[in-house]
Amino acid sequence: MSNLKPHALIIGAGAIGSFYGAILKRAGCTVSAVVRSEYDAVKAHGFRFESPLGDISWKPDHLYKDGDRPDSTPDYVILATKVLPGSDRAGLVRPWVGEGTNIVLIQNGLDIERELADAFPDNPIISCLAFIAVSRVAPGEIKHNAYGRLVMGRYPSGLDDHCQALSDLFVEGGIDIKLTEEVVRERWLKCVWNTPFNPLSVLANGADTYTMLDTPGGEKLVREMMQEVIDAAKADGYALPPEIIDSNIDGTRKMPAYKNSMALDYLNDRPIELDAILGNVVAIARKHGVPVPRLETMLAALRMRA
Amino acid sequence: MSNLKPHALIIGAGAIGSFYGAILKRAGCTVSAVVRSEYDAVKAHGFRFESPLGDISWKPDHLYKDGDRPDSTPDYVILATKVLPGSDRAGLVRPWVGEGTNIVLIQNGLDIERELADAFPDNPIISCLAFIAVSRVAPGEIKHNAYGRLVMGRYPSGLDDHCQALSDLFVEGGIDIKLTEEVVRERWLKCVWNTPFNPLSVLANGADTYTMLDTPGGEKLVREMMQEVIDAAKADGYALPPEIIDSNIDGTRKMPAYKNSMALDYLNDRPIELDAILGNVVAIARKHGVPVPRLETMLAALRMRA
Repeated sequence: MSNLKPHALIIGAGAIGSFYGAILKRAGCTVSAVVRSEYDAVKAHGFRFESPLGDISWKPDHLYKDGDRPDSTPDYVILATKVLPGSDRAGLVRPWVGEGTNIVLIQNGLDIERELADAFPDNPIISCLAFIAVSRVAPGEIKHNAYGRLVMGRYPSGLDDHCQALSDLFVEGGIDIKLTEEVVRERWLKCVWNTPFNPLSVLANGADTYTMLDTPGGEKLVREMMQEVIDAAKADGYALPPEIIDSNIDGTRKMPAYKNSMALDYLNDRPIELDAILGNVVAIARKHGVPVPRLETMLAALRMRA
Repeated sequence: MSNLKPHALIIGAGAIGSFYGAILKRAGCTVSAVVRSEYDAVKAHGFRFESPLGDISWKPDHLYKDGDRPDSTPDYVILATKVLPGSDRAGLVRPWVGEGTNIVLIQNGLDIERELADAFPDNPIISCLAFIAVSRVAPGEIKHNAYGRLVMGRYPSGLDDHCQALSDLFVEGGIDIKLTEEVVRERWLKCVWNTPFNPLSVLANGADTYTMLDTPGGEKLVREMMQEVIDAAKADGYALPPEIIDSNIDGTRKMPAYKNSMALDYLNDRPIELDAILGNVVAIARKHGVPVPRLETMLAALRMRA
């Protein structure tokens, strides 16, 4: 990396990817993007934002579509697609990765880094979890509602200069970063909420949080599913604090009823991140011989729908 | 009961109720019916059948609607409605029951007799399971595709003259009856198939039998759910043969792929018999402290939909 501000390329520049692209642009980076269906809109107008951060709308320095090749190898390739069963994320990234390119994942779920780490063993893998409320309202138009914090760490563990440098850029661009030496633990922690609530909302035909908790047997089931996640995490080497179940339930009850992102994907006929959120948790539990009958029931029922 | 052929009244004269009414009519009984939305069609044309048994179309001797009162108390009140959460089946039956009236249930599910036995402690309760393929095609028009056998016994157990007399009538009308001293065991046996497959098909958005079995993890899940039913039955005093899981799976694979009745109810926006098929099994398992995590997961998810 030179002393010049680095070059970041966003792959999957939807609401989340284009938001973090905007932050890096504010930090002075060269920021490019690979887009698919929204190429024409972004080419014409860039990414237009409504955000509490002010005017963070931006135009990519280079705009690419699938099949294009880079003008120069970026310092950061930021993958911000949804993690869908059957998608070839290594293939998506490969054309853009050079020697020393940092591969940055801003994606949901558990055990989603392995595919990239296996495909690019010599590149740094920076794994990020986004805590943000942002949504695409039209081609190239994004509404940033709140938050934006990233939890970031080296995959599979530790911290290094690559993480620190990227964190500095994001902070310079105006968002909060939590650096962690145990990003996998952070993913497990997020699974305690996501792995029960997200798939359950789909099985319940898009039910909101209160509907799920207040249905007879609902809160009990959610708590039992959270315990299954905790059991799997423990067998995987991550002992999570037991009070996390209470705090997740209490936190959910303190917020208004809402439909989570997987429920919204389902209700809008978009594919759901089934493996990233649920399937990988079940696979790890099975590998360790941990019984997760409730999670397995959800997983099989949801796979039967496809 | 006099030496004359008895009087039977069908409550819930849909496809199943009107079929067994037709059989009793063929046996020479006086057969009446209480209908709701299809009153006009049945008044005009009776129940019209297409059936491998030949012409079994019939006109009720008395046709009633809700709120009517009987001309005379029937010997048999035959309840053939679906068993839906929140329905007041005792209330439905009460106006038609006199001293000595046999209350006959031709209904699906487990523990569905208790409500009637509690409400009418002095009347014989005859509990029947129907093995039949029959469907309503238009108001008052029914297509009988195949079968028709009833498994019949006294509730809660045993056999008596009331059962024998009704069985004789059905046999005279042309169908096969299996009398049992343990009708509750027969209900548990039927639950081994119904309790997993029916609700699971709804969670899987109306999936057919092959889709459920052939989805990765599907057959394993169905087998584990069958084991949960068997565990609950055992705790309830009914040890079922362990090979019943294999025989149910094999039997399902020998038939063409099909959508079960609950899947069809779901796909046609009709209410499903959730408690009769699943909720009551879970309640009995809980009463005995038997873990049924997979069945509980299905039950809570389906209740969240309402």
